[in-house]
Amino acid sequence: MAESDMPGEILELRSSIDNIDAALVHLLAERFKMTRRVGQLKAVGNLPPADPKREEQQIQRLTGIATEAGLDPQFAEAFRAFIVAEVIRHHELIAEEYAEGRRQGDVPPLDTYS
Amino acid sequence: MAESDMPGEILELRSSIDNIDAALVHLLAERFKMTRRVGQLKAVGNLPPADPKREEQQIQRLTGIATEAGLDPQFAEAFRAFIVAEVIRHHELIAEEYAEGRRQGDVPPLDTYS
Repeated sequence: MAESDMPGEILELRSSIDNIDAALVHLLAERFKMTRRVGQLKAVGNLPPADPKREEQQIQRLTGIATEAGLDPQFAEAFRAFIVAEVIRHHELIAEEYAEGRRQGDVPPLDTYS
Repeated sequence: MAESDMPGEILELRSSIDNIDAALVHLLAERFKMTRRVGQLKAVGNLPPADPKREEQQIQRLTGIATEAGLDPQFAEAFRAFIVAEVIRHHELIAEEYAEGRRQGDVPPLDTYS
């Protein structure tokens, strides 16, 4: 359907959705930078990548925030699953670059959620 | 591992990750409100829920933003899949509430991405 046939309110909402999406992607990019840095620090300090206590605290906190924001409690788990899957995917891409010689040295450690 | 044994830089990064997560969840909550409203407007205006042209534009735009933010181009598709899956899940929850009589009237239309 042509954009000119869309009601104005839908076009305005789409413009806001586009703004929110840009903000979300930029915040996620910052978040991934931070998990990478945590992964490096844990490797240097010889700390285990997984931290179940921290993960439990994060899920509880996010469930509270999601509920307060009008989302259902299961949202926190879905959000966490998305983040973890993306961190793993990024890590695999980086590992490929090392395997193909496009990056040198040891593959940095995987830190799924920090 | 006890929090007191964590290097200070990791604790600082975790605190920033927590702030970013709160921002992400609140922005996502606003985004879901907007897709719901677009769904209602489309239903009222008898417009089709899916809009392949708009979806194509969104993917192209998000791919550009993701690349600019240092993420890989496939990120846009993963982000989109997460949003669509969540919108479908929310819609199923609402449909259940109608089926169980906790909400009255017709189930509002599903609008996966807007």
